[in-house]
Amino acid sequence: MTNANRDHDDWLSTIKWDANGLIPAIAQDASTDQILMMAWMNKTALQQTVEVGEAVYWSRSRQKLWHKGEQSGHTQQVHSIFLDCDSDVIILKVTQQGGIACHTGRLSCFYRQLDTSQKAPQWQTVAPVIQDPEVIYSKK
Amino acid sequence: MTNANRDHDDWLSTIKWDANGLIPAIAQDASTDQILMMAWMNKTALQQTVEVGEAVYWSRSRQKLWHKGEQSGHTQQVHSIFLDCDSDVIILKVTQQGGIACHTGRLSCFYRQLDTSQKAPQWQTVAPVIQDPEVIYSKK
Repeated sequence: MTNANRDHDDWLSTIKWDANGLIPAIAQDASTDQILMMAWMNKTALQQTVEVGEAVYWSRSRQKLWHKGEQSGHTQQVHSIFLDCDSDVIILKVTQQGGIACHTGRLSCFYRQLDTSQKAPQWQTVAPVIQDPEVIYSKK
Repeated sequence: MTNANRDHDDWLSTIKWDANGLIPAIAQDASTDQILMMAWMNKTALQQTVEVGEAVYWSRSRQKLWHKGEQSGHTQQVHSIFLDCDSDVIILKVTQQGGIACHTGRLSCFYRQLDTSQKAPQWQTVAPVIQDPEVIYSKK
């Protein structure tokens, strides 16, 4: 590796990747600051995110790179990236294409809120489905 | 376990705890929606958070419950809790006492932004230290 390449990769080696080589990435709406989702990235996913300007995650369930929106069209244009004090979590500030980040057809994946008004707390759905997932994922 | 107890714990069993019995918890300012930090909770931490109304995390480095602010006074009053579609990430909407969530003395732990204006991207500090950590942690 040349010195130039080494310098070029400093920003990646600053990150404390976990035992699986991953880091949690929080996607936040760049204009409203609503949190849309959290997913995981490996080094290649983060490199591609910066190169392409759109969020590329590592799918832990499918064990492959996942260019968000590749099926649905609901890509995330990345405006800025932030790293926390422990260098083990990042935030992406994004524009969410289609206004739908969640595979359930909702804007945000965080659509359940804990209702603590009763003795037994309960998760309650508090955000509407914008588009039926069957429609979203049947697109060609 | 009685039926009543079982019902009472349904909201906890909905959560998909990871292999270490933990879930990532994103703390977000309830009024501005700025993301303050991300930490981890086990079942007891989340139960205590709901009971106490202040954020209680599980410190992975110290392997113990961590009532945020126990040393610094910078507690987090919890207004609402959200769960994502995969049931494996939560958001806490909080009021950050002292306006400092980060152990570096900054409001948010996400104080470094990736500067991609040069050929070699770099993490740049973009938020000020509000109070010297030596002062924060010398409080009695």
